[in-house]
Amino acid sequence: MLKGKHLIGPRDFTLEELDEILNLAHLIIENPKEYSKVCEGKLLAALFYEPSTRTRLSFEAAMHRLGGSVIGFSEANSSSTAKGETLEDTIEVVSNYSDIIAIRHPESGTAERAKKHSSVPIINAGDGSNEHPTQTLTDLLTIKLLKGSFNNNVIALCGDLKFGRTVHSLIKAMSRYENNKFILISPNELKLPDYIKKEFLIENNIEFIETTSLEEGLKHADILYMTRVQGERFEKYEEYLSLRDSYILNREKLNLAKEDMIVMHPLPRVNEIQTDVDDDPRASYFRQAKYGMYVRMALIAKLLGCV
Amino acid sequence: MLKGKHLIGPRDFTLEELDEILNLAHLIIENPKEYSKVCEGKLLAALFYEPSTRTRLSFEAAMHRLGGSVIGFSEANSSSTAKGETLEDTIEVVSNYSDIIAIRHPESGTAERAKKHSSVPIINAGDGSNEHPTQTLTDLLTIKLLKGSFNNNVIALCGDLKFGRTVHSLIKAMSRYENNKFILISPNELKLPDYIKKEFLIENNIEFIETTSLEEGLKHADILYMTRVQGERFEKYEEYLSLRDSYILNREKLNLAKEDMIVMHPLPRVNEIQTDVDDDPRASYFRQAKYGMYVRMALIAKLLGCV
Amino acid sequence: MLKGKHLIGPRDFTLEELDEILNLAHLIIENPKEYSKVCEGKLLAALFYEPSTRTRLSFEAAMHRLGGSVIGFSEANSSSTAKGETLEDTIEVVSNYSDIIAIRHPESGTAERAKKHSSVPIINAGDGSNEHPTQTLTDLLTIKLLKGSFNNNVIALCGDLKFGRTVHSLIKAMSRYENNKFILISPNELKLPDYIKKEFLIENNIEFIETTSLEEGLKHADILYMTRVQGERFEKYEEYLSLRDSYILNREKLNLAKEDMIVMHPLPRVNEIQTDVDDDPRASYFRQAKYGMYVRMALIAKLLGCV
Repeated sequence: MLKGKHLIGPRDFTLEELDEILNLAHLIIENPKEYSKVCEGKLLAALFYEPSTRTRLSFEAAMHRLGGSVIGFSEANSSSTAKGETLEDTIEVVSNYSDIIAIRHPESGTAERAKKHSSVPIINAGDGSNEHPTQTLTDLLTIKLLKGSFNNNVIALCGDLKFGRTVHSLIKAMSRYENNKFILISPNELKLPDYIKKEFLIENNIEFIETTSLEEGLKHADILYMTRVQGERFEKYEEYLSLRDSYILNREKLNLAKEDMIVMHPLPRVNEIQTDVDDDPRASYFRQAKYGMYVRMALIAKLLGCV
Repeated sequence: MLKGKHLIGPRDFTLEELDEILNLAHLIIENPKEYSKVCEGKLLAALFYEPSTRTRLSFEAAMHRLGGSVIGFSEANSSSTAKGETLEDTIEVVSNYSDIIAIRHPESGTAERAKKHSSVPIINAGDGSNEHPTQTLTDLLTIKLLKGSFNNNVIALCGDLKFGRTVHSLIKAMSRYENNKFILISPNELKLPDYIKKEFLIENNIEFIETTSLEEGLKHADILYMTRVQGERFEKYEEYLSLRDSYILNREKLNLAKEDMIVMHPLPRVNEIQTDVDDDPRASYFRQAKYGMYVRMALIAKLLGCV
Repeated sequence: MLKGKHLIGPRDFTLEELDEILNLAHLIIENPKEYSKVCEGKLLAALFYEPSTRTRLSFEAAMHRLGGSVIGFSEANSSSTAKGETLEDTIEVVSNYSDIIAIRHPESGTAERAKKHSSVPIINAGDGSNEHPTQTLTDLLTIKLLKGSFNNNVIALCGDLKFGRTVHSLIKAMSRYENNKFILISPNELKLPDYIKKEFLIENNIEFIETTSLEEGLKHADILYMTRVQGERFEKYEEYLSLRDSYILNREKLNLAKEDMIVMHPLPRVNEIQTDVDDDPRASYFRQAKYGMYVRMALIAKLLGCV
């Protein structure tokens, strides 16, 4: 039973609960009309203390497509915090107005704090980093729909593996399934932290290799998950300049990949995937964004107990 | 008949009209589903020329919970005023788009000006001060539901009684009922203005006492209405520092109060009520906020003639 | 068939398609209830990269009055562009969330660019100037409803005819109909550009006269379309000061006009129409704004194929 639960971290749900949501998302995609009124009369509060248009629009679209309504704000300065109100008080009040809350906040731990003062389900739409559990749900749904299974995949992760929370969450999520292999592609400065390798890969006997070469890394991949390499992560900016092009995916590099590989990206992208890749059938990031809306529909409907 | 009326000032409605709204709010609370579509097809324009998240969300939630829709803005700078349009012209246009307008504006008298150019009901959501009539409706509904009657109450008002418009409105509203007594708790610098004492208390033969002590004042109260004491109201800041703690309600002081007293606050609070009070059954400010949504539902439905 | 089409420029539609939209708008005005649910379950994305409250509220009201829902933003800074995302990527994503997109952007050509990356209809709500095709639709509906015909009108255009795109679009639109005459009223500095005279008036054998006098110009007009004369358009500011009052319509000047002339204005006005004109039955600009909502309802319903 997911009804009434919160979603704060990407591992809050059991594999069965995840399945429940992903399966519902799949059903909604196949027959959206059947679900277009299941949340009629319900109200989502989208509390965005920092701008994140895509995530906000995705949540709002999800609620509308379930027949529900939305209130909220898209930036902190039009919120009561300007008057010195605590987050806790805002949540106490807003959970009296609404049936479910999606919260985005620049400070880590905010969603957890909110949960304690809410009489309705809280969904963490990102706090303190780019990670948020609905991104992970989105990634899982994309893999489920485009690769067919969470097992037996070779997953290449490319870019900033040190600070990229999206990537960390995906590794943690996929490490719960069977017989996956990871190819970790990054500059030496931005390698995956040891604790993640240890706790999630080594302890689970999951195979992985590390490489600095995107060309090498993508050759055997079933899934290529791209993220941005940001200059400010490097001690020496010249070092960044010397290698940044190596982590840009273009059509030429894509030619080295398997025919049925999929390219994922959490978006927004800047230039780490060249637009000449967009027309390739393997480019899956826009579909991924679309699935993000559907998985949020499933999540909201489940937490509200409407389905 | 409230249909088509405006609500500009807290005393615009007769006692009978107030009763009509408060009774409807009560009915909605008891059976929200029955009212969840009464305003279907109706459109509220929420024109917030200054940010006031709680009030805005409360109005928007109210309209959605009646099955209606909302358009609007939450800050002046995304409005046409940036292009030099007068308020009057904006109202002429927006009242052609919508069925009812809630307006919030930093300048006194704005709602009255708006009324003259609107073909649909105008609700004043605050102009030029923190007072607004829907706050008074909220306060009245809270007293009705938690104390059972508008008569025979001992009402303690604490904090800034000089500038606090919420408090002024409440005194004016409650002075229309019978056998209430007031305890006015404030620093000497922030006492209730003489004209209010005279016009609303003395002329109506309403008993009141004044005190500077919260401990003394709350002992016999049925209702304790807290407001903030702001440093900038004092000529000498040291004076403020020396007495501010006296006007902070905490659990210790609350122990002196009657078992069935209720603590009200218009919110947002800063620190004038300590959070250790929140769990006390007498703490009523979050319920008060919730009632605010329901009373706005009743108000909107009545002015639109949907109920 | 308008279903699935985009509306980027004011001349994108044939006369027949225009008729289809204007006729539907007329039907909606006469029986709004019948259309109040035709777009139920549909989602409009209102992407306003620059504030334009009236236009945005008009689109949003239109969608709600058709039973649809709205997502979007009202200013660029709360959009993903802050994170460096291209317009093209935003459109790819948002067209996956929504059923139709209205876009407003300060740069010319944006709507055309958006169209190429959208899987749903794009409506240009203004890009790079004050012109936008739904304003032209609004103007046409106003003429249709208040003058009865697009033929045989004497149309006086007053103000900044050099830079005023609204006026250019209206001339282009009306030049497609028969037996209209134009009176072009402007200071010498702000005369209608030669290419428009040539291409749309002279080549179509349409009669026109030019004058610098509003009093002279409005005498024989059936329609007077006012626009603002802005000081910054003049090389010498004193020149502007010496003549600006000549282009302000007041009741005195209106007395010279025909009894059944209509005064139009795209709004917002500053002072180019004095408020003493508002009560005159010929003042049609607020009705024009209202018609703007209805014509957008018709446009959205047609492009979505809901009617």
